[in-house]
Amino acid sequence: MPPWFRNFLHLSTSAISKHSSSLHRQTTISPPLSLSYSFSRFISTQPSVPEASRYSGLGPTKPDEKPRVVVVGSGWAGCRLMKGIDTKLYDIVCVSPRNHMVFTPLLASTCVGTLEFRSVAEPIGRIQPAISREPGSYFFLANCTGLDTDNHVVHCQTVTEGADSLDPWNFKLSYDKLVIASGSEPLTFGIKGVQEHAIFLREVYHAQEIRRKLLLNLMLSDVPGVTEEEKSRLLHCVVVGGGPTGVEFSGELSDFIIKDVHQRYAHVKDYINVTLIEANEILSSFDDRLRKYATKQLVKSGVRLVRGVVKDVQPQKIVLSDGTDVPYGLLVWSTGVGPSPFIKNLELPKAPGGRIGIDEWLRVPSAQDVFSIGDCSGFLESTGKTVLPALAQVAERQGKYLANQLNRMGKASGGHANAAKDMDLGEPFVYKHLGSMATLGRFKALVDLRQSKEAKGVSMAGFVSWFIWRSAYLTRVLSWRNRFYVAINWATTFVFGRDISRI
Amino acid sequence: MPPWFRNFLHLSTSAISKHSSSLHRQTTISPPLSLSYSFSRFISTQPSVPEASRYSGLGPTKPDEKPRVVVVGSGWAGCRLMKGIDTKLYDIVCVSPRNHMVFTPLLASTCVGTLEFRSVAEPIGRIQPAISREPGSYFFLANCTGLDTDNHVVHCQTVTEGADSLDPWNFKLSYDKLVIASGSEPLTFGIKGVQEHAIFLREVYHAQEIRRKLLLNLMLSDVPGVTEEEKSRLLHCVVVGGGPTGVEFSGELSDFIIKDVHQRYAHVKDYINVTLIEANEILSSFDDRLRKYATKQLVKSGVRLVRGVVKDVQPQKIVLSDGTDVPYGLLVWSTGVGPSPFIKNLELPKAPGGRIGIDEWLRVPSAQDVFSIGDCSGFLESTGKTVLPALAQVAERQGKYLANQLNRMGKASGGHANAAKDMDLGEPFVYKHLGSMATLGRFKALVDLRQSKEAKGVSMAGFVSWFIWRSAYLTRVLSWRNRFYVAINWATTFVFGRDISRI
Repeated sequence: MPPWFRNFLHLSTSAISKHSSSLHRQTTISPPLSLSYSFSRFISTQPSVPEASRYSGLGPTKPDEKPRVVVVGSGWAGCRLMKGIDTKLYDIVCVSPRNHMVFTPLLASTCVGTLEFRSVAEPIGRIQPAISREPGSYFFLANCTGLDTDNHVVHCQTVTEGADSLDPWNFKLSYDKLVIASGSEPLTFGIKGVQEHAIFLREVYHAQEIRRKLLLNLMLSDVPGVTEEEKSRLLHCVVVGGGPTGVEFSGELSDFIIKDVHQRYAHVKDYINVTLIEANEILSSFDDRLRKYATKQLVKSGVRLVRGVVKDVQPQKIVLSDGTDVPYGLLVWSTGVGPSPFIKNLELPKAPGGRIGIDEWLRVPSAQDVFSIGDCSGFLESTGKTVLPALAQVAERQGKYLANQLNRMGKASGGHANAAKDMDLGEPFVYKHLGSMATLGRFKALVDLRQSKEAKGVSMAGFVSWFIWRSAYLTRVLSWRNRFYVAINWATTFVFGRDISRI
Repeated sequence: MPPWFRNFLHLSTSAISKHSSSLHRQTTISPPLSLSYSFSRFISTQPSVPEASRYSGLGPTKPDEKPRVVVVGSGWAGCRLMKGIDTKLYDIVCVSPRNHMVFTPLLASTCVGTLEFRSVAEPIGRIQPAISREPGSYFFLANCTGLDTDNHVVHCQTVTEGADSLDPWNFKLSYDKLVIASGSEPLTFGIKGVQEHAIFLREVYHAQEIRRKLLLNLMLSDVPGVTEEEKSRLLHCVVVGGGPTGVEFSGELSDFIIKDVHQRYAHVKDYINVTLIEANEILSSFDDRLRKYATKQLVKSGVRLVRGVVKDVQPQKIVLSDGTDVPYGLLVWSTGVGPSPFIKNLELPKAPGGRIGIDEWLRVPSAQDVFSIGDCSGFLESTGKTVLPALAQVAERQGKYLANQLNRMGKASGGHANAAKDMDLGEPFVYKHLGSMATLGRFKALVDLRQSKEAKGVSMAGFVSWFIWRSAYLTRVLSWRNRFYVAINWATTFVFGRDISRI
């Protein structure tokens, strides 16, 4: 027997004995341990574990076990909630199609390389370490597909992104408390071609796609044989939607063009243009003075503001309702958000706009132990309160509030299913708007500290606001690691310019 | 006329006048400037530039112009060459399917999050700024498709990666000097399924794919309903090829498992395994003592070393020549490199192994003004020299040597096509091996400073080597920006652990 083979045998058996312990812990039946078994692990035809030991979900928790909070979603609302939940009281199970939270306010900066993608993504395991540590806590890379409130069960399906030969499979989760925080999805108003040709700006992979396309177009437009017309098309970046996201992205983009493209793509710098198309006013949530300032700044930095309504989106051009054709090389779509199909299909009372209807305590009244926070939920008309805007600060505040509520219930041993029925609910959730901010690029930003569009209050614009904007967000970044990286990124971008490697 | 429309008109006209200047500069004919024209830019049906002004390549340089060096490829050889070329003497045109150089020795570290992807990618514009600044220097995101040495012309085709509605187009480049440095491609020995199911480790997107797959498998294996067998398969990382790349990747992987998986994926930590399959000896280029040390270290850190020959690769398992089935979740293939189809198809004399044959001055003897460096070239048998190994240090040394040669020619006004025929060639290229290094993870590395496998000389292993390895590579990183980032990455990984967000 050759030495490598002895060595290999030795290794696999040791691997097995190590492996067996886990079998003992994790499954009811553990197969006989023998060398033949050790090899069976290398022969896929012979199943190493009897069917009997398969399990297809997490069953109801027993009274002597920690109650289980199932959180659907990993956005601002869900993550702030998980961060706040007392893991001595609860096990947390998070179901989401992504294993990280996106620090959305800084996402626009990553498209042009001001920030690294990694700097704006926060792994859930870092937000709530118990999820990777506690035996009863899990993160499942999956989508929620259905809800059975009578039996306290959610149905889920794994996300596999067509990774070769991995069929998605379904499983069930019993919950003691369920928090639906699955967020919203971009509105396309049923306009043809948006889904196919436009890029949204909500996830890290969106930013990556924008970046790759922008750099690809910059390089392609430099290749011999490209007509002037094609050049102008390739380098025409069109942003549809004049909300904070659209404006911030336009600002970052013009920044990138002025500071980096002019220097690093000298051959094509005169062909690149940014057009921001908005049907109404840009930044409608800000006060007139700030809006005027923003308009002035954007125009100054070369952004073309066009008021128009998009009728049709084709591979290389969009058509406005007045019939104008607008050729584009890059099309970014940010015209607000609405409820996702999952939310629409849930058989729960709805708030105006089709979100899940909740009461002042963020509960879904009709269903015991079911809560909903963030963009996917809104106050029921019966509450007499208006639906809150789809803002990070709303979602975060709700997550924080609900975490405290659940902790309170847990302490009062109301953690398990149906155990909190007649419990005192405490203070209802009240939202106090802390104001809005938006950066315009070129060290300029808007800060609107008024509680509502009508209210009086401080609102300012310019460099100081920009400084406030950066500091504010830097302190909001969740982990020290990323806080550190964001600062480093900003510093290096300042010193070395933006990174333009297309990877 | 509504104000926004006046505003828009004003903007587009100003944009146009700006645009027109560039037209004047960059094309022969400039169309009449009028408001109608300003809108014509928004109507793709009406071409804004007459066909006449189209051009489909770069023609021969005139005697009063700077001679043009065309560099095919952006790897170690090509980039070191471009860095060294005196841009007062030459215009540089680089043709490559990627706009950055990959710092390959550190690529393995990016798969598991020890380093950021961006930290190992160096934009060509940063290596040779003239390319983005000088009017006559260009970078073209394209592949070289053919060569016409009689007319000093290379044929190219743009790389568009199926970005929607962008058909690749062809163009020609006239060169005064041509340097072929297009590198090699991974060897698969015609084994079925390798291309489809295995991941190579040569480009940044390979590392990204490995990382995404690894994290996906880690998360999927934690989902309810996964059988023990499927879990073991998903978390079985198989590396084929025991060269430095395979060994370093296995080391990084076991590092990641020991330091991060055990802590952050506690539920599945007992199921993850790394197997390194090699047909012969691992690290055959290193001396026996180091090889034994490496074997010991890898086994210690849990890597299973299997000597075997892969016969067939299927979606979920590989089949060894002895009939053993090896199920895998992640398969990384690094069994050495060979000439690419482009090189094979070039009608130039070949060196043993099918590389482009070159003489001691790195010239392609049969073709005037054509040179070749790096993995794609090898000494002709007639030179009596053996083909040099496909190593970064060989490529880099050749790039440096050839840059000096070309500068010498340029100074002696031999820069233009056919102008250096009877020029004194100076010293031939002599390669002196500085030794080999390989990291094993866990703060261990090998340093072999002998000039050849037979020669005597220093060779050491352990922490000191690891320290040398890191310092050596840190100083080799090309730009200060990335040097800074690599250091920062190493520090943060050390302090905060590796990043596990799957973006």
